[in-house]
Amino acid sequence: MNEVKNMKFVIAPDSYKNCLSAFEVAKAIHAGINQIFPKAEYEVVPMADGGEGTTTALVEAREGKYEKVLVHNPFNQLVEVQYGFIDKQIAVIEVAAASGIQYRDAQHNSPLLASSYGTGEIILDALKKGAKKIVLGLGGSATVDGASGILQAIGAKFLDKNDSELQLGPANLKELAKIDFSEVDPKILKVPILLASDVTNPLLGEEGAAKVFAPQKGADAVMVEQLEDNLSQFAKIACNYTGKDYINTPGAGAAGGIGFGLLTFLNAKIEPGVKLIAKLSQLAEKCQHADYIFTGEGRTDFQTKFGKTPYGVAQVAKKVSPNAKVIIVSGSISEDADELCQNGIIDALFTAPVGAKSLDQAIKGAKSDITYTSKEIARLLKVNTSLKN
Amino acid sequence: MNEVKNMKFVIAPDSYKNCLSAFEVAKAIHAGINQIFPKAEYEVVPMADGGEGTTTALVEAREGKYEKVLVHNPFNQLVEVQYGFIDKQIAVIEVAAASGIQYRDAQHNSPLLASSYGTGEIILDALKKGAKKIVLGLGGSATVDGASGILQAIGAKFLDKNDSELQLGPANLKELAKIDFSEVDPKILKVPILLASDVTNPLLGEEGAAKVFAPQKGADAVMVEQLEDNLSQFAKIACNYTGKDYINTPGAGAAGGIGFGLLTFLNAKIEPGVKLIAKLSQLAEKCQHADYIFTGEGRTDFQTKFGKTPYGVAQVAKKVSPNAKVIIVSGSISEDADELCQNGIIDALFTAPVGAKSLDQAIKGAKSDITYTSKEIARLLKVNTSLKN
Repeated sequence: MNEVKNMKFVIAPDSYKNCLSAFEVAKAIHAGINQIFPKAEYEVVPMADGGEGTTTALVEAREGKYEKVLVHNPFNQLVEVQYGFIDKQIAVIEVAAASGIQYRDAQHNSPLLASSYGTGEIILDALKKGAKKIVLGLGGSATVDGASGILQAIGAKFLDKNDSELQLGPANLKELAKIDFSEVDPKILKVPILLASDVTNPLLGEEGAAKVFAPQKGADAVMVEQLEDNLSQFAKIACNYTGKDYINTPGAGAAGGIGFGLLTFLNAKIEPGVKLIAKLSQLAEKCQHADYIFTGEGRTDFQTKFGKTPYGVAQVAKKVSPNAKVIIVSGSISEDADELCQNGIIDALFTAPVGAKSLDQAIKGAKSDITYTSKEIARLLKVNTSLKN
Repeated sequence: MNEVKNMKFVIAPDSYKNCLSAFEVAKAIHAGINQIFPKAEYEVVPMADGGEGTTTALVEAREGKYEKVLVHNPFNQLVEVQYGFIDKQIAVIEVAAASGIQYRDAQHNSPLLASSYGTGEIILDALKKGAKKIVLGLGGSATVDGASGILQAIGAKFLDKNDSELQLGPANLKELAKIDFSEVDPKILKVPILLASDVTNPLLGEEGAAKVFAPQKGADAVMVEQLEDNLSQFAKIACNYTGKDYINTPGAGAAGGIGFGLLTFLNAKIEPGVKLIAKLSQLAEKCQHADYIFTGEGRTDFQTKFGKTPYGVAQVAKKVSPNAKVIIVSGSISEDADELCQNGIIDALFTAPVGAKSLDQAIKGAKSDITYTSKEIARLLKVNTSLKN
């Protein structure tokens, strides 16, 4: 048998969307396990995949701080948004904060007009406040503008063949003839930007930003074609201007092409969101010598293995602690989710709700249900472990 | 470590009331565990506590057969009911079959009139068909007649001081002066009857059949007093007649005093339902060398430890296999149910529903949810076991 040692649990869930933050989920799991293993060692690491909750997860995991700033939403209205700082000099920004799908309403809904300008304003605010590096979560955008709005916000000029400046939004990118960076502060071009993406789509084509994601942002078939054409024109000019071609880089099509635009023009790198967040929250170090990893998310389905948080957490954890067991506690699961358990990465997959309850009741009872279910799982682990507790 | 051996699972749930029979629940649990431990040894033992599902559980566990017979319900209407035979000569009858609360309706609802006569008719039918022993489950009755109806059905006469025969039902037991067994077949008096009770209430008083259970059967405060008086008179005459006093025997107050009446006049013994069913289904033998016992019920709450199936199963199992672990999978649990796990009898307590779903959806999805949850529990057991599988 192993030598006698205390158990070590790593608790690294995503948020339960529209229900609990990752930190709240993690605390609820901890409260359950801790009733059964009060002497165990715990690492609580709220996680995210670059989508909603990324800022909160990192600020909470690294005890950072929040900033607020007034910027323009995709439809050019002023809104106050939040971002964060960790390690004092790393700004953590979500595209969704200023440029998110939540700003669409009955009057403001055309993806042809939606601009990522506000996200550029946040970046400027962060730099002004001392950011030396930027983490940008690409999930949840309302835009399909190839980052043109962000670039316009930092001072780039998008010009047509008559040198007239194009308006915000992708509607007129078809007319783009030239991009002028002469008035952009060169320091901005050098700041490292880490793009956290949970998708690997290219900018253009059948799997691209327009065809795959624009319909979710309100585009009909005609608009999708128009967006595809306009992004193509933007890409052509951008590649010619810089001599770089990121059109097919995995994730170039994330957030309506923000991946592409920032890779091309700024000092950006793109990474799978969960891996980047894991790195920033030092997940691998915290998983060393772990016996059990608890993770989870609002809903687990077959997509989870394509870059969503629990699968990413499991991959990181098993790399450093191959014998650790990974247990998912999610709000719900799809019928096909179980295949996640078939390759040895995920060891068991439970849902949190206790007994029959409506979605509303499940959301209201989520904290105590997560705690209960985690406690019962811990009981099972306890009856089977010969480690000292 | 233990020597290498195959795992052994015993699957012994109660029914999920209004949802699945005990056998269906057991099969669903088996289907889940079997996906993870295909080479394990299994004992599937549908269980019951003497209430609804007792006949089915025993007939299924022991591969018995069903009988049908036309008898009178508590309100003197003819109904077809089912009972069972196991080991060819043991009849398994539920009081609820002929005398159950389900026969109450807007017109037929007075517990003063409700008689257990039909249960006596089933007993006669079973004897006619060769029963040498009778198992009678006492749960779910609509009656508070002290078994007077059953006794009348087998030929006993309940007489007032003018030797006029009393009508069925407890309304007139106050007038009871004499009981005449001269026309009862003496063979009936000798047949062993095993009463399966899930309560330990005495016949009379604050904890008695009238005060505790009559309100659930439609009695208002005045009726409760009247029933108490009438049962008292019956008990006085019965004790005088037989020289026996079972008034305070635990379970005498079960099924509206059927416990008392049959203990006093017939060759009956009373036992906690789950223990009796466990004995008849040979649960203890089947739990020998078991590693895990899976049990469960529709709803688990603090009452479970007062004689309900999962707790009884756990007690039997731990007696023969103290190192076996008992895991409950129930449809729902109350908030206080968790204390069941605090004395080492129950090792973990899960609910079956997967994700948020309404009671209706949970009932419809019960089979596959039980299978899923059992499978995930089995996964956890697998990652922690060093036994060979």
